[in-house]
Amino acid sequence: MKWTTDAQKNLMLFSGRAHPELAEAVSEHLGVKITPQTARDFANGEIFVRFEESVRGSDAFVMQSCPAPMNEWIMEVLIMIDALKRGSAKRITAILPFYPYARQDKKHRGREPISARLIADLLKTAGADRIITVDLHTDQIQGFFDGPVDHMHAQGQLAEYVREHYGTENICVVSPDAGRVKVGEKWADALDGAPMAFVHKTRDPDVPNEIKSNRVVGDVAGKTCVLIDDMIDTGGTIAGAVTVLKEAGAGDVIIATTHGVFSDPAAERLAKCGAKEVIATDTLPIGPEKQFENLTVLSMAPLLAQTIREVFENGSVTSLFNGSA
Amino acid sequence: MKWTTDAQKNLMLFSGRAHPELAEAVSEHLGVKITPQTARDFANGEIFVRFEESVRGSDAFVMQSCPAPMNEWIMEVLIMIDALKRGSAKRITAILPFYPYARQDKKHRGREPISARLIADLLKTAGADRIITVDLHTDQIQGFFDGPVDHMHAQGQLAEYVREHYGTENICVVSPDAGRVKVGEKWADALDGAPMAFVHKTRDPDVPNEIKSNRVVGDVAGKTCVLIDDMIDTGGTIAGAVTVLKEAGAGDVIIATTHGVFSDPAAERLAKCGAKEVIATDTLPIGPEKQFENLTVLSMAPLLAQTIREVFENGSVTSLFNGSA
Amino acid sequence: MKWTTDAQKNLMLFSGRAHPELAEAVSEHLGVKITPQTARDFANGEIFVRFEESVRGSDAFVMQSCPAPMNEWIMEVLIMIDALKRGSAKRITAILPFYPYARQDKKHRGREPISARLIADLLKTAGADRIITVDLHTDQIQGFFDGPVDHMHAQGQLAEYVREHYGTENICVVSPDAGRVKVGEKWADALDGAPMAFVHKTRDPDVPNEIKSNRVVGDVAGKTCVLIDDMIDTGGTIAGAVTVLKEAGAGDVIIATTHGVFSDPAAERLAKCGAKEVIATDTLPIGPEKQFENLTVLSMAPLLAQTIREVFENGSVTSLFNGSA
Amino acid sequence: MKWTTDAQKNLMLFSGRAHPELAEAVSEHLGVKITPQTARDFANGEIFVRFEESVRGSDAFVMQSCPAPMNEWIMEVLIMIDALKRGSAKRITAILPFYPYARQDKKHRGREPISARLIADLLKTAGADRIITVDLHTDQIQGFFDGPVDHMHAQGQLAEYVREHYGTENICVVSPDAGRVKVGEKWADALDGAPMAFVHKTRDPDVPNEIKSNRVVGDVAGKTCVLIDDMIDTGGTIAGAVTVLKEAGAGDVIIATTHGVFSDPAAERLAKCGAKEVIATDTLPIGPEKQFENLTVLSMAPLLAQTIREVFENGSVTSLFNGSA
Amino acid sequence: MKWTTDAQKNLMLFSGRAHPELAEAVSEHLGVKITPQTARDFANGEIFVRFEESVRGSDAFVMQSCPAPMNEWIMEVLIMIDALKRGSAKRITAILPFYPYARQDKKHRGREPISARLIADLLKTAGADRIITVDLHTDQIQGFFDGPVDHMHAQGQLAEYVREHYGTENICVVSPDAGRVKVGEKWADALDGAPMAFVHKTRDPDVPNEIKSNRVVGDVAGKTCVLIDDMIDTGGTIAGAVTVLKEAGAGDVIIATTHGVFSDPAAERLAKCGAKEVIATDTLPIGPEKQFENLTVLSMAPLLAQTIREVFENGSVTSLFNGSA
Amino acid sequence: MKWTTDAQKNLMLFSGRAHPELAEAVSEHLGVKITPQTARDFANGEIFVRFEESVRGSDAFVMQSCPAPMNEWIMEVLIMIDALKRGSAKRITAILPFYPYARQDKKHRGREPISARLIADLLKTAGADRIITVDLHTDQIQGFFDGPVDHMHAQGQLAEYVREHYGTENICVVSPDAGRVKVGEKWADALDGAPMAFVHKTRDPDVPNEIKSNRVVGDVAGKTCVLIDDMIDTGGTIAGAVTVLKEAGAGDVIIATTHGVFSDPAAERLAKCGAKEVIATDTLPIGPEKQFENLTVLSMAPLLAQTIREVFENGSVTSLFNGSA
Repeated sequence: MKWTTDAQKNLMLFSGRAHPELAEAVSEHLGVKITPQTARDFANGEIFVRFEESVRGSDAFVMQSCPAPMNEWIMEVLIMIDALKRGSAKRITAILPFYPYARQDKKHRGREPISARLIADLLKTAGADRIITVDLHTDQIQGFFDGPVDHMHAQGQLAEYVREHYGTENICVVSPDAGRVKVGEKWADALDGAPMAFVHKTRDPDVPNEIKSNRVVGDVAGKTCVLIDDMIDTGGTIAGAVTVLKEAGAGDVIIATTHGVFSDPAAERLAKCGAKEVIATDTLPIGPEKQFENLTVLSMAPLLAQTIREVFENGSVTSLFNGSA
Repeated sequence: MKWTTDAQKNLMLFSGRAHPELAEAVSEHLGVKITPQTARDFANGEIFVRFEESVRGSDAFVMQSCPAPMNEWIMEVLIMIDALKRGSAKRITAILPFYPYARQDKKHRGREPISARLIADLLKTAGADRIITVDLHTDQIQGFFDGPVDHMHAQGQLAEYVREHYGTENICVVSPDAGRVKVGEKWADALDGAPMAFVHKTRDPDVPNEIKSNRVVGDVAGKTCVLIDDMIDTGGTIAGAVTVLKEAGAGDVIIATTHGVFSDPAAERLAKCGAKEVIATDTLPIGPEKQFENLTVLSMAPLLAQTIREVFENGSVTSLFNGSA
Repeated sequence: MKWTTDAQKNLMLFSGRAHPELAEAVSEHLGVKITPQTARDFANGEIFVRFEESVRGSDAFVMQSCPAPMNEWIMEVLIMIDALKRGSAKRITAILPFYPYARQDKKHRGREPISARLIADLLKTAGADRIITVDLHTDQIQGFFDGPVDHMHAQGQLAEYVREHYGTENICVVSPDAGRVKVGEKWADALDGAPMAFVHKTRDPDVPNEIKSNRVVGDVAGKTCVLIDDMIDTGGTIAGAVTVLKEAGAGDVIIATTHGVFSDPAAERLAKCGAKEVIATDTLPIGPEKQFENLTVLSMAPLLAQTIREVFENGSVTSLFNGSA
Repeated sequence: MKWTTDAQKNLMLFSGRAHPELAEAVSEHLGVKITPQTARDFANGEIFVRFEESVRGSDAFVMQSCPAPMNEWIMEVLIMIDALKRGSAKRITAILPFYPYARQDKKHRGREPISARLIADLLKTAGADRIITVDLHTDQIQGFFDGPVDHMHAQGQLAEYVREHYGTENICVVSPDAGRVKVGEKWADALDGAPMAFVHKTRDPDVPNEIKSNRVVGDVAGKTCVLIDDMIDTGGTIAGAVTVLKEAGAGDVIIATTHGVFSDPAAERLAKCGAKEVIATDTLPIGPEKQFENLTVLSMAPLLAQTIREVFENGSVTSLFNGSA
Repeated sequence: MKWTTDAQKNLMLFSGRAHPELAEAVSEHLGVKITPQTARDFANGEIFVRFEESVRGSDAFVMQSCPAPMNEWIMEVLIMIDALKRGSAKRITAILPFYPYARQDKKHRGREPISARLIADLLKTAGADRIITVDLHTDQIQGFFDGPVDHMHAQGQLAEYVREHYGTENICVVSPDAGRVKVGEKWADALDGAPMAFVHKTRDPDVPNEIKSNRVVGDVAGKTCVLIDDMIDTGGTIAGAVTVLKEAGAGDVIIATTHGVFSDPAAERLAKCGAKEVIATDTLPIGPEKQFENLTVLSMAPLLAQTIREVFENGSVTSLFNGSA
Repeated sequence: MKWTTDAQKNLMLFSGRAHPELAEAVSEHLGVKITPQTARDFANGEIFVRFEESVRGSDAFVMQSCPAPMNEWIMEVLIMIDALKRGSAKRITAILPFYPYARQDKKHRGREPISARLIADLLKTAGADRIITVDLHTDQIQGFFDGPVDHMHAQGQLAEYVREHYGTENICVVSPDAGRVKVGEKWADALDGAPMAFVHKTRDPDVPNEIKSNRVVGDVAGKTCVLIDDMIDTGGTIAGAVTVLKEAGAGDVIIATTHGVFSDPAAERLAKCGAKEVIATDTLPIGPEKQFENLTVLSMAPLLAQTIREVFENGSVTSLFNGSA
């Protein structure tokens, strides 16, 4: 009494309005067009989205990167996911190259939110089955989502670039603060066991948030310092780190970051901070006003496209990242 | 083996940054200060919130009205609710005098989101136990939230104002479109059984969203028309309705609305549309740039304060609205 | 280490006992037999259901229409869905041509249930993944279900019938109450921009539920009135509307409704009310005791079968309804 | 910044329409009036409920017993719970003296529902926080509900009645089928270690549901047999058991059951089956048409009232039942 | 704009460390290798698991039997399921031939857990979509899991073995306590309607857990008694039953059980209790220290492999068990 | 129609069997006796728990620390929470001074579980409303639980002890690996801005888990090094760190840790590693076999008792930890 046919799967690609360049690049590498949609803002700020083609039964991948105004883009991707769910998409993967609110991944003090967990829950509530993201602020954020998270890494590409342009002989990997030292250790391994250093900030325990001093821990004298961070927002911390390194006798300073948030006045600060080169990826849009002379941008699009393909075809994403994804 | 004490309940009032004037007014009527908090925006748009006092065990009421930029304020209230939940508030009531995305309460066409339901689910996910709101776009939105919704009405105050200033003798209640006729009927009852009319829009079924004609259905000649709507955004529809009414021989036209969104160019349109008076409430902030000569604003603060009190003390909110809340 | 085979999908059709004629008609149009089952009532009213064939891995479509005794049929479909879930059906779609409790889609006054939302939640709890339904009392009910709802419309067929038999020249579309005017507007568009009218009921705000007067708003004199409603229960409202229209000078009155509930004494009332013809669909069973001379019943079976096919094959249901589904 | 008051709790009692006599009796024993409500059926069978008083903040106890038409009463209690949830009751306890669909507590064969679990989930979905019930068909049903279940027992009262009227000297406890032997053992303990017997039914494994023979296992000759069951529906099984016992030489046969479903023709069968007395409780309504000469009905109202009081005042229900509740 | 391919399904088999012999046997019958994994214990008892191959998109079957130390193996299977969920397995079936904590399927007295329900919820929370298990302590446990449970039975094999070796002429089926009589009835049917008996334990209602006497109910004199139980733990109850049967004049006593827990001193007790043969299955590992001369072990591996195949290929499991699965 | 009384709250304290000494100490500081319970293990490892007093309506605090065999104690606390939930406790707080599986807080490589999140979900599923814990391995674990987590810190007590016994003049705070540097920074602040260092481990990226070298980053020559860690398991890493520090010219080395897991051979290693003193707390039981000469144990009981009191009385826990809890 059954009516039987062979099952098929369809990959459909969707993009929010936050970073269309990246979505287009992924679309080209993947060979799948972005599904056309109507998306507009009402006068009072409400967002409206409608897809122009049937999404029924599709394996839907929704790309949205989250630069400022971040809350706009978060709501847009939630609304898109809701429309996909109600339009009968079979599986919905949210691709957030830059995970929003990643810095608020814990209560730093009492009575604070844990916004990074909230974001994971909002995505789930809207209807996302899975997440693909790049270089989370802390790896633990993977655990905030109740489902599979494919966690991609830009470090391989960034470190390869450094190796090609600066070698690994006289390199020192430097973390701009105590929280990034763990990531720095992975960089040191990738650069043939380079030595490490970090900037130690002292605070008065009785006066919240006031930094008393910045000290370089580790030997940087004469070294080419690779100063790493997962994201650079206004650039104050990282520019300060360059200054301290120079005072400690460092040679060239190279800054490497995955997420170039580059909020004003980052461009000016980074251009003038004394770093020889700033290397970032295109997980976030870096418009003309955010660019500066010594900036190099590497594209994540090929890796994103390859990850989408593996997810769709049930291949291994882990193998793309030497086991760590 | 128990340690027993009398239980107590504490009312605490919180306010997002969207409409502090209304929160202050409610605070005064209620006699409860707004709990101080730190709320700021990071350079890339992320919102940070921290409460300055312990919220543990409190019966928390969080006010947030949602003018533009609406998505900012939605995320802020979600983050505040998350912080209250993690800070051990006992019960969390979200007070949204203007419910966001209320117009997207259904799929108008295929492959659309139902954003009003999404908002209800996001509030629940963040941790809201209950909602208080005013004059929903459609009453069915109450059913989108899985929990109690106290649905307040401004109509009583608005109709009372009309009665006092214009009497009920020569009144005609007019709905600017077919969807508001049901609400218009309640207005007619409140104004001693006044007659009704509405503006009938015809569309070509094959050309989406293009209106072919506006016709007044019902007899408005010589009448003082009370033109009602739940919200006025850019004012195009309502100003057009005034024109059609005037063409149909209407006398004075009075516009009454609960939510004065008043996005640009509403102020100019409403000032010039030929209406004698525009009556709105303060559920949304109406800054100087949104004001105009013939605008009257009634305050919902006393009613909101009274509702909060009833909810806290387990009194009846229904009785505040003649049974319909 | 995997054992790999091509995936297949099987469509299986199931029917509750409420309206077997419709299920049979759909089965024939679809070319899929209804899966045989044992269904019986215990002496104390408990329902027992067992499927006679394996349902494992199937794409199950469960039809149940809900005439009186409605609660019986609701429980039966919930029990059937539970049995499908526990029997490992892969996906379960509940087809409810007449959505039960649709009228209780909001709290009309305080301390009431929102039964239409409750029904959506009960279906979800039992295990339904999706819903197919026809002409909901209000479109917002789509948002009550946390998942896809395919909302079919009978209006196309009904309006086409009117056009064929009565033309569109002298037509006036009439809503029997204020709440249906919005739907009336769609009818007017479908009938070449026909004019509209509605019956305005006035009530004493201090005396609940007592109607003081019925007034026709809009010009119906000499017109062929198409009086529309989503459902007709005992027929009191609609028969009253015919009377008021006739008093207002209307010509022929045609009644068109999707759901012919026709509870006693609807048949008698409709036969005698003065309407020239009553057009309904077969979403509900219309047994001999509910029929009368001037009744015409159009079948929804072809459209239901086509919708099931599109859902199974991941086609577009939206395209079946000119974008609005 | 808090507004602090002493917390209070209010017990409110509600009753569905299935068994008002029991609710009234409980109300009297408890000294709490049943909250007045409007409850009515629409012509098509839809149920409407509205409470006449505010339920906000209450500790709500909703009584509903489930005789035929059972599905009506299930839907009514679900709707009442929904209305309480949306009306802001603080805690909702469903009191179902006779738990519906208890017999379908497992899949007897493949492709069946587990309706007793479904009922538990429906109650939870509607908003019930806790359940009070009497003598479940199997104790495991407690585990179907995700929350506290206070499981009351009528056995104490029933056994006490037997002891008073028949002594314990010559008693034999008899289970009418293999599934009740475990309960029979508790009866035997309560009656001073009386001996036991049960009726063994043999079936052909290849012919479903056809019983080949009934055999008494255990020695009943000359004994006063107490034939026990949790519920008696049409009385066929139990009347058959009396016959078999008599054939095996039993003396007087006394039937004791908690739930007197007594569907037709139970009254006739029980009156004529040869049992000396039938003892039941009032968990279900036993109207005049269900009564017969040798029937004795014990009231559960005092115990229900006491249980409600303990639950409200956080006392121990376990202590009311010698540890087993 | 879609990228379409034929869907495929992959069966992958996983095994915890509790009972590798059974998993290996199933693997061989199924012809699917067990996916290699790293599983180890940290010094403080924490378990670590990692799969050596990609599990993305797989139809994963995870076998874990639960002998002592049971809690270790429960946590291991939960952790494996979590890793499968986060590794993007498409569907996860937990195969627990011996369902843990099955005896705690109800509150025997107040303030107890219902651990069997807890286990079902923990499995669901970790990510299990379905369960396959063998001979649950009570059938109702199926209803504890919110999803499909394939409930296999060993009785067919066990009874067939008895028939072959002992015939059915002089057989009496004996339940060692009142709770197993229902299962005994199925045995009696399978053995050509053999007569039944059970051991009646009397307790003092005022002294918990103290048994006063053991009495055989039913006629066992000269019969070959098949003493059945779902599981044998330390063997005290069953050995006691043999003694009582012998005292009551029974002939040979054969013990048949599905789950040979055989905790110390079961081997010694069973060897010396006077039973002619003890028949068990290999749902639990029966190491050398648990074996004894008159023990016969039947393998469930062929039936488990066949069930897995039917589940993967969407065949009927019910048909493997004559309708009762 | 209500029956109104003043609400009361009762604090009840419960303890698993993992670390009774700590529970007793907390009980004494709090002045609340531990509720007596029956807890035992069945022969096959199943745990049984029953409370000896009614827990209805209580504010229940359940203490369980998790040394080896950890999975036993996890299951025990889950079962206790289930029993409290089903016994109608009003609120359930799980107190886990040492959070289990905290090290598995992320996927270190692909196809791994995130066991720390799983634990949070299992606690929630069993019925825990809140968690109290001490010094999580990473702060982000707070975000794994969907509800309030009170995160206590032992650092204040530990640092105060160091200050009293060693002063802060010649101190250097050393992290034994890159991941603890962030916590080291807080220690440096607490010790008057002491300098920092850490041990840099290099690995071959192509050979998993093999450490090539250990290097001290930072200047430790002649310093009194305070070597910190959240937990010490077998002591290999920390003892290795002492050796490297000594080689780098460090003066005295003091080891400070919150959680003394001290699995074999930690006691021997720590006694012989060259550290002058090892300071730990009693969050885990440190039996005689785990003790050694230069070990100092500080008690967390007073702080735990004070935290419980604040939670019960709705005071501020944040204020106990200078804002960071």
